[in-house]
Amino acid sequence: MSAIPEDFIETTARLSDEVTRPFPASRKRYVTGSRPDIRVPMREIAQTPTHASDGIEENPPIFVYDTSGPYSDPDAHIDLMAGLPEVRSAWIAERNDTELLGGPTSRFGQRRQQDPALAHLRFEHIRTPRRAKAGRNVTQMHYARRGEITPEMEYVAIRENMRLDALRADPRYAKLLRQHRGQAFGANLPEQITPEFVRDEVAAGRAIIPANINHPELEPMIIGRNFRVKINTNIGNSETTSSIEEEVEKMVWSARWGGDTLMDLSTGKHIHETREWILRNAPMPIGTVPIYQALEKVDGKPEELTWELFRDTLIEQAEQGVDYFTIHAGVLLRYIPLTAERVTGIVSRGGSILAKWCLAHHQENFLYTHFAEICEIMRAYDVSFSLGDGLRPGSIADANDEAQFAELETLGELTRFAWEHDVQVMIEGPGHVPMQMIEENVTKELKDCFEAPFYTLGPLITDIAPAYDHITSGIGAANIGWYGTAMLCYVTPKEHLGLPDKQDVRDGIVTYKIAAHGADLAKGLPGAQVQDNAISKARFEFRWEDQFNLSLDPDRAREFHDQTLPHQSHKVAHFCSMCGPHFCSMKITQDVRDYAKAHQLDDDQVALEVGMKEKAEEFVKDGARLYREV
Amino acid sequence: MSAIPEDFIETTARLSDEVTRPFPASRKRYVTGSRPDIRVPMREIAQTPTHASDGIEENPPIFVYDTSGPYSDPDAHIDLMAGLPEVRSAWIAERNDTELLGGPTSRFGQRRQQDPALAHLRFEHIRTPRRAKAGRNVTQMHYARRGEITPEMEYVAIRENMRLDALRADPRYAKLLRQHRGQAFGANLPEQITPEFVRDEVAAGRAIIPANINHPELEPMIIGRNFRVKINTNIGNSETTSSIEEEVEKMVWSARWGGDTLMDLSTGKHIHETREWILRNAPMPIGTVPIYQALEKVDGKPEELTWELFRDTLIEQAEQGVDYFTIHAGVLLRYIPLTAERVTGIVSRGGSILAKWCLAHHQENFLYTHFAEICEIMRAYDVSFSLGDGLRPGSIADANDEAQFAELETLGELTRFAWEHDVQVMIEGPGHVPMQMIEENVTKELKDCFEAPFYTLGPLITDIAPAYDHITSGIGAANIGWYGTAMLCYVTPKEHLGLPDKQDVRDGIVTYKIAAHGADLAKGLPGAQVQDNAISKARFEFRWEDQFNLSLDPDRAREFHDQTLPHQSHKVAHFCSMCGPHFCSMKITQDVRDYAKAHQLDDDQVALEVGMKEKAEEFVKDGARLYREV
Repeated sequence: MSAIPEDFIETTARLSDEVTRPFPASRKRYVTGSRPDIRVPMREIAQTPTHASDGIEENPPIFVYDTSGPYSDPDAHIDLMAGLPEVRSAWIAERNDTELLGGPTSRFGQRRQQDPALAHLRFEHIRTPRRAKAGRNVTQMHYARRGEITPEMEYVAIRENMRLDALRADPRYAKLLRQHRGQAFGANLPEQITPEFVRDEVAAGRAIIPANINHPELEPMIIGRNFRVKINTNIGNSETTSSIEEEVEKMVWSARWGGDTLMDLSTGKHIHETREWILRNAPMPIGTVPIYQALEKVDGKPEELTWELFRDTLIEQAEQGVDYFTIHAGVLLRYIPLTAERVTGIVSRGGSILAKWCLAHHQENFLYTHFAEICEIMRAYDVSFSLGDGLRPGSIADANDEAQFAELETLGELTRFAWEHDVQVMIEGPGHVPMQMIEENVTKELKDCFEAPFYTLGPLITDIAPAYDHITSGIGAANIGWYGTAMLCYVTPKEHLGLPDKQDVRDGIVTYKIAAHGADLAKGLPGAQVQDNAISKARFEFRWEDQFNLSLDPDRAREFHDQTLPHQSHKVAHFCSMCGPHFCSMKITQDVRDYAKAHQLDDDQVALEVGMKEKAEEFVKDGARLYREV
Repeated sequence: MSAIPEDFIETTARLSDEVTRPFPASRKRYVTGSRPDIRVPMREIAQTPTHASDGIEENPPIFVYDTSGPYSDPDAHIDLMAGLPEVRSAWIAERNDTELLGGPTSRFGQRRQQDPALAHLRFEHIRTPRRAKAGRNVTQMHYARRGEITPEMEYVAIRENMRLDALRADPRYAKLLRQHRGQAFGANLPEQITPEFVRDEVAAGRAIIPANINHPELEPMIIGRNFRVKINTNIGNSETTSSIEEEVEKMVWSARWGGDTLMDLSTGKHIHETREWILRNAPMPIGTVPIYQALEKVDGKPEELTWELFRDTLIEQAEQGVDYFTIHAGVLLRYIPLTAERVTGIVSRGGSILAKWCLAHHQENFLYTHFAEICEIMRAYDVSFSLGDGLRPGSIADANDEAQFAELETLGELTRFAWEHDVQVMIEGPGHVPMQMIEENVTKELKDCFEAPFYTLGPLITDIAPAYDHITSGIGAANIGWYGTAMLCYVTPKEHLGLPDKQDVRDGIVTYKIAAHGADLAKGLPGAQVQDNAISKARFEFRWEDQFNLSLDPDRAREFHDQTLPHQSHKVAHFCSMCGPHFCSMKITQDVRDYAKAHQLDDDQVALEVGMKEKAEEFVKDGARLYREV
């Protein structure tokens, strides 16, 4: 009998209905690796054939990177109460370097589990946590440096390739594979991603695979400059509390639209319980900012924070399965005065909390002084560092200033230290930066942090558009992704103003998918242009349904089209809803081609008659190309 | 007694109610030039004072570039039936180089005026058109090359400066004027725009002032790489007709949100009458694509187009007051085969119409062969060329291809030819271009077209996001604007899918205002950062109302905030709606500053006690800065 209140089950059920609806014309495809339990999900989008004047041309299916997890798989049985199937359990167990604990070892985790008052909120099937055996290191970086290719590494290699090798071998994709040369700013993008390449990148610290041993539900993914640009989404209730089911729903919603990772920034009463629900149902890596919860535990009084309390919070969350922690260990006492003259001071919550602690105690940031102990915890569960930029600029005026770059240099020092423990690291970046100053952020991060993956928030390229900051930041994100940022933290239209609702999350994610894909195209990521080529061919041939289905948001594309031309007939009509039949340029272009075909002979004669000799010669010369099959 | 049906008057009246509402905390300011009838509008936004722990600080008003025309001026009497007041009539008359015609000289214009069936649609106060006296040239470029500074040139100089000189002289603006150094890619951005500078730029062809002598209602503006980046918006009904009042409403709506120019792309039954209504009420330059209307006149059959018919259409529109014409004279017969292998062929409507004509007749594009006669018409009314990119790429695959660049070179040839007639020219650009290939478009345009202003549509940086193409193109627009594009043609969320409604137009415009402003910041346009600095200061000080009022879309910013925290008290509360009181980083930053102030003495002592000598020394060294007044 469930301890979960009826209304919760109801809500969840209703929600899962919306979020499990498969994408149109799409089916879930799993590519199997070297062992049967490596099954990498992709979304296959079917296309309709082209009806040309000279016969029917088949249009092959298009494969897209799939972050939606089992939720979009009609064959998967979804039960948020039970959580997702465990993808990685066997892999973790086989390594035989971890042990099952009797239960939570954090004091706080124990208290919560024993509190009967929380029964109605508690996830029903809490797993007992795992931890590295004494003296063992269980990070993907550790394995990589030992030369081991883990199933996680092979998984991400298959996932990054997106069957590109198969497409290359299939003549139906020859034209679709045409792609412009990129400008990669020093990124190394191989024609094919091998498990060895993944291992090398992880070993070198240029990429991370966030994968806590207590998050076996995870579908592994990789974050690094030499792979697809990823996007992170945030959820989290706040004092104006939103409920557990709302948060879980947002997580699944985020997965559906393309979030590669997700940060749970909840600050409400039941952070611990909310997190358990999210993790057990999350196919993507989950990140947190542990200092937020630690602060809750001392009633929001930063000066009362202690290392012991923080340490207990890290263990509490690591044993739940959080995959990466934002740690603001670079906010040093001596840097705080550098922010005094800023227009917007310290805008990072974590950064300002630690700044206050530092001044209150006049001691150095305890995350910095206890960094070695933090590394011990990280490596015991394989939690990755997201070294927080607590002093990031919160306005155009404060961009690239002394405080920001001083902290960045310290993050580099901490990166090297974490790597001595084989702990995976990524580096957080700004923020608010005008376009001409964005590239310097990437160049400096790559240099000071030894090419550890950069993970930036936007940046916003101007401060003057609240309510449109998904766009102001999407522009900066596309540019910084192009220059070499590995993961882009999304921003919603509610940034600076309020809490995002479902539509805001969707708008933010799609905007960031655009930025990330735009960056992949600009860098020249192999295969990145296939989807563009396919959707443009569909557009040109008036295959409206294919155009919708191949887009980042098929539902909205169809909805917008139907607002102008609602009838089914219009989806096959050979003209666009913008212009109507007479004015459709694409239709006219086809007439041009047909006409040219029909009048092949006339062409040069007429041309010559009207005395355009020189033009006619070129016309004949080029003419041949006109008559090739389109 | 009005011939206009009641419902039209009603609609228009209701609409003008919405579009004439002044912006919050804003008032219309007119800066007077060397003569009393040069009155340049700006929007002045009042700010509330800052209540600091140590007293009250005044925050000076911020001035923003104002495209909204008299509609946002509560003192202006708006009557769409009568049209706007004539800003330029005296200037034009004084030059004494034009003559009033008896009436329309185009056959079509005459027919429409005499058709009683159109009385109910006809604008009531049609002015008899003006034309240059025989042998006279009335273009702004002609005056500039003769060394004359016209009132139009002085007007735009004042308008571009935005009172920057006054701000520099006012100590209250000292901090707000701080700005990062830009990267201008060769643009020349003087500290102050003088009328002489404007004249030089217009004379050199590096900038244009679109200002038909038959559009005296126009508030002059300038388009050039060495001035603020501008944005163009489009309206226009289509076969699925929208009504005249809807189009007028969209025009005023576009002016309100920041459209610098507007293209009327109407293709419906009453193009002529709709255009008259729009022009008589338009404070911004109006552009058209005359070939659209010409095609209407031959029932949409491109092959039946003739030079005579097109010529009559140019005169018809020039005498109504259209400020710039898109002319696809670069679509040459020999270039058409170059598009045969494209993924999306020819996507420009005008381009495809002319391509079809060329092939049907096997003669060279009649816009090219009659270009000299077109120049004669342009200079007789001062209509500017917008040389159309009929072969622009419609997909990432087709970007920067042979067809596109061949046409661009021909546009350069035509530019030089038009300049021989002192006719103003801007050059249209793409389209769909991946980020790494955008800069080449600007570099090549500047070289091949001798720095004539570049006017681009986006470009979209990917094809895969229909329903979000204001964003895919806004990213490209910000970048191409930074590289040197003078005007950005907006794209709405409905691009590729349907006809934009009012909200789509608003979303498209604000997105492009972001792109244009981001480009101004990146180039280092003097004064561009003032609004960013002001809104960020307001944000940091929790002056919520000021933050809303200083934003590009005050209404939506306020609306979004209120969705989370509806109460008035929250707009003065010292925490953000995102985080609540405990977690507000900005509040904590202020606590940090207050704490630091209070404990000045303790600081180093405590620091020393905990043995952080070296750190403490730096702290002391930097300390001083911490205690300065914020």
